[in-house]
Amino acid sequence: MPVKAIFLDISGVLLDGSTPLPGAAQAIQLIQQAGMPYRLVTNTSQQTCAMLHAQLAEAGLKVDISHIYTAPLAAHDYLVEQGLRPYCLIHDNLRSEFADLDQQNPNAVVIGDAAEGFTYQRLNEAFRICLQGAPLIAIGHNKYFKKDNVFYMDAGPFVEAIEYACDIEAIITGKPSPAFFEQVLNSVQLPATDVALIGDDVYGDIQGAMNSGMQSRLVTTGKYRANDESRVEPAAIVVKDVMHAVNELLV
Amino acid sequence: MPVKAIFLDISGVLLDGSTPLPGAAQAIQLIQQAGMPYRLVTNTSQQTCAMLHAQLAEAGLKVDISHIYTAPLAAHDYLVEQGLRPYCLIHDNLRSEFADLDQQNPNAVVIGDAAEGFTYQRLNEAFRICLQGAPLIAIGHNKYFKKDNVFYMDAGPFVEAIEYACDIEAIITGKPSPAFFEQVLNSVQLPATDVALIGDDVYGDIQGAMNSGMQSRLVTTGKYRANDESRVEPAAIVVKDVMHAVNELLV
Repeated sequence: MPVKAIFLDISGVLLDGSTPLPGAAQAIQLIQQAGMPYRLVTNTSQQTCAMLHAQLAEAGLKVDISHIYTAPLAAHDYLVEQGLRPYCLIHDNLRSEFADLDQQNPNAVVIGDAAEGFTYQRLNEAFRICLQGAPLIAIGHNKYFKKDNVFYMDAGPFVEAIEYACDIEAIITGKPSPAFFEQVLNSVQLPATDVALIGDDVYGDIQGAMNSGMQSRLVTTGKYRANDESRVEPAAIVVKDVMHAVNELLV
Repeated sequence: MPVKAIFLDISGVLLDGSTPLPGAAQAIQLIQQAGMPYRLVTNTSQQTCAMLHAQLAEAGLKVDISHIYTAPLAAHDYLVEQGLRPYCLIHDNLRSEFADLDQQNPNAVVIGDAAEGFTYQRLNEAFRICLQGAPLIAIGHNKYFKKDNVFYMDAGPFVEAIEYACDIEAIITGKPSPAFFEQVLNSVQLPATDVALIGDDVYGDIQGAMNSGMQSRLVTTGKYRANDESRVEPAAIVVKDVMHAVNELLV
């Protein structure tokens, strides 16, 4: 099936940390030369679009900043669509991403990995807003992350805490949430079947794409482990790297 | 069925706040004069046995302190039985209850409503210990509480957070946990069928007693609401107050 737009994961597909992966620059160039609409989709919880854009440029990947789609941005757009005023329990890096929104007298909670921002006082403020019926919008749902070889609780456990306290279910923005992919699809104004996602995570990317009705390619450059393709049904289409994926999709 | 020991809830059965409930003093006297073993069982998460003992004495209820059985004490005894060294994420009031235990190089986590003690740093310390396979022992599992007309998250949400982060299930000490009742039963060296629990909470007390095989009496002095007795199967035996309950059980 020919595609009319391509979505690409960043980490493990285009970048390894801040280093470009093999074929990444050429893949982006090919897409742009073909005039193919594209979006970079990522679950970052501590980087703004501007920070990611600068990081990609430094790695020699020149993309339009408006084509970078992050979980925080999806949360932002959801708030705008619903006319909500958020209480933001998020990482300080992300504050600027929500700075244009009215945050007085909040009627929604946005939660991400706020790290040291997770104080009892701030968690209680978020909890009290949700207890009054406000929606809980979660930027990701990961259990934990590792930094300098030390484990830290990520946003997921705190999402669970407020969900349990208020007997509610969070709206999770970010892959593999269908709501997240739906928003990115809206931005290209195409049905899911016309779009392919290139990713390195068989669950977060490939399974998510499948559940949303998109095509997909699983690259072996990132967190891929042998036989990952068989962990989903039907089996994922594996390609060596992003360049090979783009070559297949542009045919 | 005649009983050989009586367990009594405190709040709503013997005390309303710090005021003795009707018949409470006489009920305790009757039990003591009959030489009937008894235990006071309560889910407090901020009071030590010594604090409760003093509060009961002030209300004119003279009981042996060794007969007061709280959720924190059950957690303490569980730690002793299992030879565990706890990391205590609990209310400052309760520190003395665990002061006799070795807390160096912890291999267990005890969590209660630590209130301001719930910092990101301390939650991460608890999480890292559990991530290495240490058990999580929870003093209660309530969602929230109200103080001076303001809502606060209780221990439950934070128990859920660590459970989710580490993919584990907490051991919950306190009513209606069967493990809690088992420990109190151990302290009187009697089978459950020989014991009756007097409580005001049809779920926490009566259902819990039934699940553990104990007899029970539901008093109407505390949080009882009309038809509470029918909320469990078989229906609970309702009595006016603790004095009537004791009179029935001492026959």
